[in-house]
Amino acid sequence: MTYSHFFDKAVARLKDERRYRVFADLERQVGRFPAATWHSPNGPRDVVIWCSNDYLGMGHHPSVTGAMAEAAIRMGAGAGGTRNISGTSHPIVELEQELADLHGKQAALVFTSGYISNQAGISTIAKLIPDCLILSDALNHNSMIEGVRQAGCERQIFRHNDMAHLEELLKLAGPERNKLIVFESVYSMDGDIGPIKAICDLAERYRAMTYIDEVHAVGMYGPRGGGVAERDGQMDRIDVIEGTLGKAFGVMGGYIAGDAAVIDAVRSHAAGFIFTTALPPAVAAAALASIRHLKASATERAGQQRQAARAKRVLSLAGLPVMDSQTHIVPVMVGDAEKCKAASDRLLERHGIYIQPINYPTVPIGTERLRVTPGPAHTDRMIDDLAGALLETWIALDLPLVARQEAAE
Amino acid sequence: MTYSHFFDKAVARLKDERRYRVFADLERQVGRFPAATWHSPNGPRDVVIWCSNDYLGMGHHPSVTGAMAEAAIRMGAGAGGTRNISGTSHPIVELEQELADLHGKQAALVFTSGYISNQAGISTIAKLIPDCLILSDALNHNSMIEGVRQAGCERQIFRHNDMAHLEELLKLAGPERNKLIVFESVYSMDGDIGPIKAICDLAERYRAMTYIDEVHAVGMYGPRGGGVAERDGQMDRIDVIEGTLGKAFGVMGGYIAGDAAVIDAVRSHAAGFIFTTALPPAVAAAALASIRHLKASATERAGQQRQAARAKRVLSLAGLPVMDSQTHIVPVMVGDAEKCKAASDRLLERHGIYIQPINYPTVPIGTERLRVTPGPAHTDRMIDDLAGALLETWIALDLPLVARQEAAE
Ligand SMILES: Cc1ncc(COP(=O)(O)O)c(C=O)c1O
Ligand SMILES: Cc1ncc(COP(=O)(O)O)c(C=O)c1O
Repeated sequence: MTYSHFFDKAVARLKDERRYRVFADLERQVGRFPAATWHSPNGPRDVVIWCSNDYLGMGHHPSVTGAMAEAAIRMGAGAGGTRNISGTSHPIVELEQELADLHGKQAALVFTSGYISNQAGISTIAKLIPDCLILSDALNHNSMIEGVRQAGCERQIFRHNDMAHLEELLKLAGPERNKLIVFESVYSMDGDIGPIKAICDLAERYRAMTYIDEVHAVGMYGPRGGGVAERDGQMDRIDVIEGTLGKAFGVMGGYIAGDAAVIDAVRSHAAGFIFTTALPPAVAAAALASIRHLKASATERAGQQRQAARAKRVLSLAGLPVMDSQTHIVPVMVGDAEKCKAASDRLLERHGIYIQPINYPTVPIGTERLRVTPGPAHTDRMIDDLAGALLETWIALDLPLVARQEAAE
Repeated sequence: MTYSHFFDKAVARLKDERRYRVFADLERQVGRFPAATWHSPNGPRDVVIWCSNDYLGMGHHPSVTGAMAEAAIRMGAGAGGTRNISGTSHPIVELEQELADLHGKQAALVFTSGYISNQAGISTIAKLIPDCLILSDALNHNSMIEGVRQAGCERQIFRHNDMAHLEELLKLAGPERNKLIVFESVYSMDGDIGPIKAICDLAERYRAMTYIDEVHAVGMYGPRGGGVAERDGQMDRIDVIEGTLGKAFGVMGGYIAGDAAVIDAVRSHAAGFIFTTALPPAVAAAALASIRHLKASATERAGQQRQAARAKRVLSLAGLPVMDSQTHIVPVMVGDAEKCKAASDRLLERHGIYIQPINYPTVPIGTERLRVTPGPAHTDRMIDDLAGALLETWIALDLPLVARQEAAE
């Protein structure tokens, strides 16, 4: 190939920087999750998955897998077109109604992923607001950053969760200037939460529109799984709520929910929505079943909160550097790319525990970590085994342990 | 909501320009396609779909729906993570091997859609080539345009399929300058084909890299469904082949195939690949079954070619303005947004024939059309009915007919 050397060099650079990623080839089996088969270079092996974002195991719930299988057999494997050109299946229409209801909004719009919903949603909304200034949290997800960039308008970054800084920027912009605040509820790599109420207060005071990413919260927080904004009674104060169907709901796809006018405008203008094949009816049907289940059942949420709290406690008591987290996410700090990868490799090969190392660009350099996501299907015994395996790994790799009294709850 | 009026205005503007889109709520049923149920405002009605991009009906093939259902029941409804973080399922690994084999390339990479594969693929490749100049066909799809834009490097547009213009630009750039040519094989709105061999010749002569979008060709052209490049014996001369799993393969997702170094570099750098939940194993398994079937079976391709040729002939003989097309796509020109919508509405309501109007921004203003996509499941009788319904509509709406001797084959 003409330019092979450029690509060879790019990959070599990653290897030099110890940032080259090797994907684990996994076979999750319904009924066994979080246990799974790892197709290792030396053949299949049993492992326990500790880093899935199928947070509640809904991807394996019989009502969800059943809905997908039934719809595939009855309605086929694909949408057969873009939303406009023959791709609007009946399940996707129902799914949008269900999502609007979940968030107490007039309407919702489904995209092929949460990534696209942010990229297309933010950029389209900002483009439709004359001379819009976007105020964006410093730790926003890449898909939001791409949306902000694609909007092409002025943007300012406020320090992560820093309300004084956000207020300063809002004041500076003045009351006349149109402003869009984009932020997340659960920041998935640290497990902290955005101050939703304070942001809504500021948005009202300074006349700004609000856009929240609840990707790591929908299904898991609030009495019906509407997210942290639902839990905190702020859902009706947020203009646009964005979420994914691929994490706690266990399937794939993304969406935004809001006023009918906003949703209709995005539907009509967003290239990333218009020019792509719609989600298959079977995917929409599975997501629909999952949302409906989690609207009515709090069992999965309670199980997740219980096991996440227990994991934090047990790991902290073992002296592992568990990062302070207000959520179901349990990050354990390593702080070095190579050691993080080595720890992950050792856990997998020696202990049959799969936790992918989280390295740059997903987190800043020097904050590489193992990100543990306990769910309702992780047993107490599995948590104890995890703590033991981590401790063995920490000692073998000479990673720093912390004093036990600092244990986070 | 704070800024409702901006969104109200945006939608009102579309309505004024007769560009407001209403999606038809459809329920395709396995075994009945291209017949389907239209959930009309007045209740369900039987219709025949004439504008699906499930070109070969593979979305309803028992081996495909069966693979999806079986994988959903056995492996679950979702991937549960990004490709790097627990989302690489065994079926997606097999799918990438199958796609590499289909195109005779060293490797392939699967994305959540063809849209993302172009956007992330083109932008990442161009960013990794120092001082890259992108040469892009004027009629390239929106997803390619977004990829070119996101690359952030210099770009030049060559007139559609105009090799003299492309050569002029290549010459002007000089042999030292790094160059990437991006183009399509089948242009889906006109049904014409890019001159693949001529572009490869120019690329060799002027030392450029080539990237082709075969989204509307994979599965349908070439002895194994490798696309027009396979049919024309040019597959090994193209550096990167991009395709979709959502059209002729009948499922959803997209991919690129090429040298191992390019694929590995894109895998490692493309934000649109890294920061998003992977395709569900059930989707990957369904796509895999579809590709394998179409590699071995030419029946569907032959049926499509036969019925497309018959539809062109019958529609032309009826005096309908069938646009000149070298492919399975049969566009019928209207040339006015409002009339195009009126024709589509009449076909649906009076004749039970569903053909979505194709308006701006999908095609240039003044070239609005009905885009007919005959497939192997459309019977001769259905084609005759279509011709009759179109003729009735053309006469009722006073649309121009053409002289019969101009009939295109
Ligand atoms: C905060 C956040 N937003 C959006 C996304 C994208 O969602 P999806 O995986 O559905 O593309 C992710 C992760 O993938 C995320 O972490
Ligand atoms: C030429 C072309 N490329 C790419 C795409 C996007 O593919 P997908 O539908 O898989 O997103 C489309 C249409 O949707 C297309 O027409």
